[in-house]
Amino acid sequence: MSGATHTLAQFIADSRWGDVPDDVRHEAARAILNWLGCAIGGCRDETVEVMIAALRDFSGPPQATLLGRGERFDALTAACINGTSSNRLDFDDTHLRTVIHPSVPVASTLIALAEYRPLTGAEFLHAFVLGVDVECRIGNAITPEHYDRGWHITATCGVLGAAAAAAKALKLDTQHIAWTLGIAATQASGLMEMLGTMCKSYNMGHAARNALGAALLAAAGFSSSGRALEAPRGFLNVLAARSDESEITGHLGSRWEIMQNAYKPYPCGIVIHPVIDGCLDLREAHRIDPAAVERVEVIVNPLAQTLCGRTTPRDSLEGKLSLYHSAAVALLDGTAGVRQYLDDRVRSPDVIALRNRVAVSTDARIGADQARVRVVLANGVTHERFVERARGSLERPMTDAELDAKFRSLAASALAPAEIDRLAEQCWSLDKLPDAAVIARGSFSEQSKRSRT
Amino acid sequence: MSGATHTLAQFIADSRWGDVPDDVRHEAARAILNWLGCAIGGCRDETVEVMIAALRDFSGPPQATLLGRGERFDALTAACINGTSSNRLDFDDTHLRTVIHPSVPVASTLIALAEYRPLTGAEFLHAFVLGVDVECRIGNAITPEHYDRGWHITATCGVLGAAAAAAKALKLDTQHIAWTLGIAATQASGLMEMLGTMCKSYNMGHAARNALGAALLAAAGFSSSGRALEAPRGFLNVLAARSDESEITGHLGSRWEIMQNAYKPYPCGIVIHPVIDGCLDLREAHRIDPAAVERVEVIVNPLAQTLCGRTTPRDSLEGKLSLYHSAAVALLDGTAGVRQYLDDRVRSPDVIALRNRVAVSTDARIGADQARVRVVLANGVTHERFVERARGSLERPMTDAELDAKFRSLAASALAPAEIDRLAEQCWSLDKLPDAAVIARGSFSEQSKRSRT
Repeated sequence: MSGATHTLAQFIADSRWGDVPDDVRHEAARAILNWLGCAIGGCRDETVEVMIAALRDFSGPPQATLLGRGERFDALTAACINGTSSNRLDFDDTHLRTVIHPSVPVASTLIALAEYRPLTGAEFLHAFVLGVDVECRIGNAITPEHYDRGWHITATCGVLGAAAAAAKALKLDTQHIAWTLGIAATQASGLMEMLGTMCKSYNMGHAARNALGAALLAAAGFSSSGRALEAPRGFLNVLAARSDESEITGHLGSRWEIMQNAYKPYPCGIVIHPVIDGCLDLREAHRIDPAAVERVEVIVNPLAQTLCGRTTPRDSLEGKLSLYHSAAVALLDGTAGVRQYLDDRVRSPDVIALRNRVAVSTDARIGADQARVRVVLANGVTHERFVERARGSLERPMTDAELDAKFRSLAASALAPAEIDRLAEQCWSLDKLPDAAVIARGSFSEQSKRSRT
Repeated sequence: MSGATHTLAQFIADSRWGDVPDDVRHEAARAILNWLGCAIGGCRDETVEVMIAALRDFSGPPQATLLGRGERFDALTAACINGTSSNRLDFDDTHLRTVIHPSVPVASTLIALAEYRPLTGAEFLHAFVLGVDVECRIGNAITPEHYDRGWHITATCGVLGAAAAAAKALKLDTQHIAWTLGIAATQASGLMEMLGTMCKSYNMGHAARNALGAALLAAAGFSSSGRALEAPRGFLNVLAARSDESEITGHLGSRWEIMQNAYKPYPCGIVIHPVIDGCLDLREAHRIDPAAVERVEVIVNPLAQTLCGRTTPRDSLEGKLSLYHSAAVALLDGTAGVRQYLDDRVRSPDVIALRNRVAVSTDARIGADQARVRVVLANGVTHERFVERARGSLERPMTDAELDAKFRSLAASALAPAEIDRLAEQCWSLDKLPDAAVIARGSFSEQSKRSRT
């Protein structure tokens, strides 16, 4: 038996935490902190409330915590809901080469499992690093054709990475890890058409749920193909017209995809970020009065316009995919945080008035993490800025301190300051904790814990 | 708003049971009887036992019956398990143009729903007919490219048809039916690589579960695209290189796809059927002694060899995909029923000895429902038969009496004769029953019901 599926399965089975370098471990802690903040920040969104209302009647025993909220659902349902809430703000991380948002499916699967079958912090992080690696390597193998075709790559590759992580956490052997990958592969789904609707984040939740189910089924002896990735009618050939298996199997254990992970300073489509940078920089440098702006001219990579070209977003979901809205709020508010993408801000007359004066054009010579922004004032003065690298890109990464501040800002919606301090500290030192699930149980406030008992 | 998604949704919303012709209603009853027999016959298979062992801990309240068994799981989990068990024997129906097995996903979704939110028999059948129509129409639109590429079309189109059926049963309006189709579309998955493993039937169970979930989410207000089928990054374009939307929207309400449904006389891949016919006919016509057979020469359509060319099947799952095994048991046993595909028959020395003397060649001029079978005896005598139309094909359909006998044979594994009589009668008269769920509650024996109370 050879082939990508078996090679990956064997790598996962054989991997030891001691094999994982320190910088990779540290990056995993950064990713978990960032993901948990996003989950807490997104957990009261309407998308999540509606999902809970629909699924509550069908949940099994209270096995796992809804992050930021505290209700407990069966582990599979919790994985689905946490996967949805942690993606909802569009504030989670990005593997830039593939545009996969790696942590959401993998971490949401693992944290649900960790409350059902206890994992040490090191076991959790180890499985997480491997899951992200599997997910992004498979993404690399089918990039760009798969995504360009319309597949929501975080979901389709996420279910595989998250399943691999769960299989590792369950200590499965090579055969059963291969089956886990097979069960996950035959559940891979998710359409880009869902952007702008509640289904966009559901794609991630569904992937997390399916991933955990795949590992649990395989662990019970549910058989699958041992060649689910590379077989003629397997994942790679069916979901992509072109693929490169060597991206999956090359440099396993020496090249770690999590080192290519980037974190968002703004909760919206990542291709919008350089435009926001440009608007914020111009506003500050020239003390621009938004009322004096006659028009804003933005030049971006064509991909940005394709993904985020919504001129008249109607709500938060669509606002996060709008270059126009984002430029307007950045100039008006001098920031682009969670509040700038709430429904009422998207519908504010002052935002609408300014976004209607934003013009977007495209230039393929401008990179997806670049933008040119020109603000023309009513008095004829023009200010211009070219953003060569967006904040949060790999070349200009968010520092640990910036990630910590982002986490604290998001967690403030659910936790008291002392609770935030403790939870942040637990995330940064997760590799030393005897029980990874403490971060789930610490994600909602003591007050609601007391009211529950 | 126009496009296939909206057109379908509106058709479903507007359809009335009174609009459905009598022959369509009767075909629906035939399909339900056949499906229920398959579910009962397959419900104790190892695939189902392993799935139950894996999922039991996560099930919610006892809302819906496992057909043939009597345990009650939450409706979503029950849909998954019943979808798996009713496909497991490879004895369910076939829409020949697409090779979709229509009833499994749609009926498994609906029967789980019927125990959660009561449906009359007429409501159940109406939703069923619409679901089969949606599923097969979408299949028609992407046939043959989608299946050829490696998609398990019963799963990918089944989730859409089953979701449409559940949405109708929940009496959703056009907007919410369109969202249901969108949620289903973004969950569409299933790889042909899974054939021969437990995942093959799981693809159907997963589709049934997701379909019910899609309708429940949409009913709660979970938004999706209103153009999930036809959008550039929607189902049709992403899952098929070529598609024809007019197949989805043409002659709605006058052409009913369930009228193209066929039923299997043998529990194995349908492309094997003409070979079994040939072997059985020759055996009977010439009183062939299997011990005297020197070799068997079979000529089939290339598709049959691609799908069912396993020369050395190791178990039941693989035996059902083997022309070689099937020809051998037909000649040896003079029948090809459930017993002929059990693990121990697949591994019997006499079967293995004879299947090793079966040679398969292909000829594209022979249809997929045709075969030429030549039996060469040790004494030099050769008998040959060309099967022009397989038993159970549309041109040579199984009669009501044959379907009834098939049902009784399958149900005998779980029910006493009087229970079988009653259940068959309920299926045939389902349109007049006030509660469709009686067929679920009647699918397991009174004895086990008593032991439960």
